[in-house]
Amino acid sequence: MNLYKDTHLFGLVMNMVQDLEMNKLSSNDVKELKLLRNECLDKKLIKKNLFIIMTGVIQTECGNGNITDFIREGEVLFVQPIRNDTQQEWLPEYKAITSCKIIQVSKEFFLNFSSIKPSYMELILQMTANKLMYVMNDSRKYDLSVEERFDFSLAELGHCLGEQVEDNSFVLPRYINKNKIASFSKTSRKYTAQRLQLLEKRGDINAVGNNILISSIGF
Amino acid sequence: MNLYKDTHLFGLVMNMVQDLEMNKLSSNDVKELKLLRNECLDKKLIKKNLFIIMTGVIQTECGNGNITDFIREGEVLFVQPIRNDTQQEWLPEYKAITSCKIIQVSKEFFLNFSSIKPSYMELILQMTANKLMYVMNDSRKYDLSVEERFDFSLAELGHCLGEQVEDNSFVLPRYINKNKIASFSKTSRKYTAQRLQLLEKRGDINAVGNNILISSIGF
Repeated sequence: MNLYKDTHLFGLVMNMVQDLEMNKLSSNDVKELKLLRNECLDKKLIKKNLFIIMTGVIQTECGNGNITDFIREGEVLFVQPIRNDTQQEWLPEYKAITSCKIIQVSKEFFLNFSSIKPSYMELILQMTANKLMYVMNDSRKYDLSVEERFDFSLAELGHCLGEQVEDNSFVLPRYINKNKIASFSKTSRKYTAQRLQLLEKRGDINAVGNNILISSIGF
Repeated sequence: MNLYKDTHLFGLVMNMVQDLEMNKLSSNDVKELKLLRNECLDKKLIKKNLFIIMTGVIQTECGNGNITDFIREGEVLFVQPIRNDTQQEWLPEYKAITSCKIIQVSKEFFLNFSSIKPSYMELILQMTANKLMYVMNDSRKYDLSVEERFDFSLAELGHCLGEQVEDNSFVLPRYINKNKIASFSKTSRKYTAQRLQLLEKRGDINAVGNNILISSIGF
């Protein structure tokens, strides 16, 4: 999960989108896509296009609702299926968990256009390499104890998707419910409920209406 | 972990390396690097270069010996540090677990050269996106039971690093010892030893000298 919004990269991406939009050869080369909450990105579309998330949050599911990552505003999705163990084409499921506005750019058009503007491909490469590093950073949690893994995941969720209210305090958005916390932290729903209760008793988190305020949990 | 060797991509990478080598402007632009067993890739080098693994195997460690991936012949490493939770630059540790021969290409030279040959950057982008997908595919295991996760990881290790002896049988190389299996499968060394014993009793694996033959474990 990308812990920081890279506003510099996002600025470059916005300029690129504008340029691609102005130079598109057909309406399919660059277009806006809207996803409703709980709608998945079409796998056929994923193969042929790259995506820039303008607003909203998408969760990456690897097998049967198993949440492994979140993608949000300013991030780029450039992926292609691999052959996995069953020898079949495999891709994660990319599911909108809020309504999303996405710019869809045809890979073919993009790769052609990048031959004139190689800096665009460099940008997508840089953002893809960043995502890989953030996924690696997140995987540190699998070597931790259950408590540590839970707290690490909760801190990540707050840091990445929460609204910052103080220096190290974040309010989790409502769409990050207990099920999502359990799936992302690889703990059970029962454990999640118990741990949240304990953290609240200790004053590390607080319920603010239906939201969770995370005030003193580190990674 | 990349389950398949993509010989087509490797061919393209080999041609690229030759071309870059022929057109380098200084000896630092493209050079051969050797790593001894247990030697780590220098982080300063990682920031300034991309790497193509010619022979050998590198393990990716995310925090304190926690193995999350393996990189082998034909793969490319294009990464850069991210800021993580401690606000510091973070990169995994890339540690050779066999002696390795690697081609090191200066990122600056590569990005400049790619403005003439954009297909090279496309190739690195494609390989980086592939790696991200394989890491995602591997993360399916974190949603499994301990037994399933262990077997999934063992099958991956066999498939990726083993020598194929029959259709679905693989001999694990010796450098994949019990410690590495435990770390990669996120189980304890004790559990690993017990599970291997049980699998052997069931006839799913066999000890062949000091090597493990995996004969009937699926993902």
